[in-house]
Amino acid sequence: MSWIDATYHVRSTAAAIEGRAQALAVEQSIEMPVAAVRDAWIRDEVLGRVIAVEPLAGDLYRVRIGLAAATVGADAGQLLNMLYGNSSLHDDVTLEDFTLPPETEAALGHGPRIGLADLRRRVDAGRRALTCSALKPQGLPPAGLAELAGAFAQGGIDYIKDDHGLAEQAYSPFAARIAACAAAVRSAAGISGHATRYAPSLSGSLDAARTQLNLMREEGLDTAVVAPMILGVSNVQLLARDYPDIAFLAHPSLAGAARIAPYCLAKLLRLIGMDGLIFPNHGGRFGYSEQTCLGIADAARAPWAGHAPAVPIPAGGMSVERVPEMLDFYGDDVMLLIGGNLLAEGARLSAATAAFVETVARYSGTKADG
Amino acid sequence: MSWIDATYHVRSTAAAIEGRAQALAVEQSIEMPVAAVRDAWIRDEVLGRVIAVEPLAGDLYRVRIGLAAATVGADAGQLLNMLYGNSSLHDDVTLEDFTLPPETEAALGHGPRIGLADLRRRVDAGRRALTCSALKPQGLPPAGLAELAGAFAQGGIDYIKDDHGLAEQAYSPFAARIAACAAAVRSAAGISGHATRYAPSLSGSLDAARTQLNLMREEGLDTAVVAPMILGVSNVQLLARDYPDIAFLAHPSLAGAARIAPYCLAKLLRLIGMDGLIFPNHGGRFGYSEQTCLGIADAARAPWAGHAPAVPIPAGGMSVERVPEMLDFYGDDVMLLIGGNLLAEGARLSAATAAFVETVARYSGTKADG
Repeated sequence: MSWIDATYHVRSTAAAIEGRAQALAVEQSIEMPVAAVRDAWIRDEVLGRVIAVEPLAGDLYRVRIGLAAATVGADAGQLLNMLYGNSSLHDDVTLEDFTLPPETEAALGHGPRIGLADLRRRVDAGRRALTCSALKPQGLPPAGLAELAGAFAQGGIDYIKDDHGLAEQAYSPFAARIAACAAAVRSAAGISGHATRYAPSLSGSLDAARTQLNLMREEGLDTAVVAPMILGVSNVQLLARDYPDIAFLAHPSLAGAARIAPYCLAKLLRLIGMDGLIFPNHGGRFGYSEQTCLGIADAARAPWAGHAPAVPIPAGGMSVERVPEMLDFYGDDVMLLIGGNLLAEGARLSAATAAFVETVARYSGTKADG
Repeated sequence: MSWIDATYHVRSTAAAIEGRAQALAVEQSIEMPVAAVRDAWIRDEVLGRVIAVEPLAGDLYRVRIGLAAATVGADAGQLLNMLYGNSSLHDDVTLEDFTLPPETEAALGHGPRIGLADLRRRVDAGRRALTCSALKPQGLPPAGLAELAGAFAQGGIDYIKDDHGLAEQAYSPFAARIAACAAAVRSAAGISGHATRYAPSLSGSLDAARTQLNLMREEGLDTAVVAPMILGVSNVQLLARDYPDIAFLAHPSLAGAARIAPYCLAKLLRLIGMDGLIFPNHGGRFGYSEQTCLGIADAARAPWAGHAPAVPIPAGGMSVERVPEMLDFYGDDVMLLIGGNLLAEGARLSAATAAFVETVARYSGTKADG
């Protein structure tokens, strides 16, 4: 039998931690009193087992649990269920990491199909960092969003995404919005000569997401933003498989709520086929540390046999002034997402975007395409 | 324009809380610098607004924010996105409650279609509390699970659910499992004369869940367990609408302690059509307080115009000895879920189940059916 290695952080005491770790192993496997299990095979091959307990600082412990891979199958939602479903309800436990045996990993996914490499190739970016902005605020009608999209594209940006709040609202229904924005980007890109991509935000059920993806294909769009913790990782896993031509950029909406370490979630999302991982950058509106951000970037792009790199997409309170600092911090294998800072330029949006693009080109990789 | 009233708990200081509340209102609406918004309609009708800030104990504040209902539409996932999507990434904020204007509420759902009333009627339970147990441990083959199901049914229990970990595993594939368990329950119910219901656990994508529901209907099954925070609330919303004959019991897997208040999530799940809400009982394996548990029960069944009561289903470390205490605590409008405590009886499972059933009948409502 093969085993999943799951790592948790547990708040406990020296006296209680062994029992707590054992309870965690039971909760994330058979979920009943061990003494009541009559089947020896289940006790030997299904019951979770404590691999290691290690004190960290203060009252925190790192606990490694072996979980039977047979309980997981090929479904990403079931992986989260068995790794952390019930234990997410305990406020003394967080899920920090997991390692899968080869057959489970292969069953769950093969990593990004587009990934960093093709996200670059699609916009002729050579080896440099990629640039991205966002269409905001919501409330704008399709024509208003299209105007912004056109301005960003005139500035030569690589990717333009919907604000993740854009969904199916009366003031900006999906079909009308993507038609208007796609047209504006095509038109501006025709003038700028740069192959800017527009990435709508998917929302609703799996059915709705498919409808939206099909509409996207009709508009010649090939990049989508999705929120896996809202849509459900099982559905995201399926979409990545069924739409291999689409680059999926994962947005972290609701990801904080379940207390799964960002590095850990990023790893799962890359495995099941997310091509880009949006996350809150350090020093912006959110409280992620530099260490957490590097961890996410690592999960996205560090070498992983059989799994192409995804692109980390730090966002949230970024500015053009910080571009050199960010490129020093992340290197070139990154997509920098700057939203509000550019939009604050108002009528100067294209020029501000061009300055962003030019700064990245100057500091990152080579200027030459391809 | 109409407004959603969202309540958060925020850790802050007296000096910082006003700014923090304003930032929260912006984050959960336009998500960009307000000064950069040129459209007056958006500033007036879309930008979130701070309604009230109230100090609680210590460094905790209750903050009420008005969010424009127009940003939400009819999708439950979008509601979570706008209520808490980005702010879930801030560790100083939890989502505590929400109130929807009538048209948004009506667009999102109409409450349980089966609910407490029909869950009782289906098993001829009169006005008494309902009884439930769970098929465990995972690892058992269909025949083993069926044997347990038959034993529970012989004891006269009302509902038997799959352990939430049962999915599509090689040792117990869904179709074979439900066929075996449904047959065992039918057979035992034919002898006991009690209309025991077996409730399989749905897993995987929305597509997979539909396949499972269709298989269930072929087996004459009409109750299903689902994990909304894994499958995604948008998909659960759709299933409840598309399968109005199925009673959906929501399992809290991945619901995550303390970031979205359990009361708040329970309210949303009832609205979108969950008929039963499983949650960790106080004094069991989990750390929920009595107050939290009463809050969940309230969210499930308190009067809500146009929305039938769902049944609260406390679970986790319950025992037959605690039945009188639990019925004193929750009253009769409850489904008591006892798993491990019954399974620990081994070969005496039917007798132990009968004792559970008899204790509930004796302490709860009237013994007469109907």
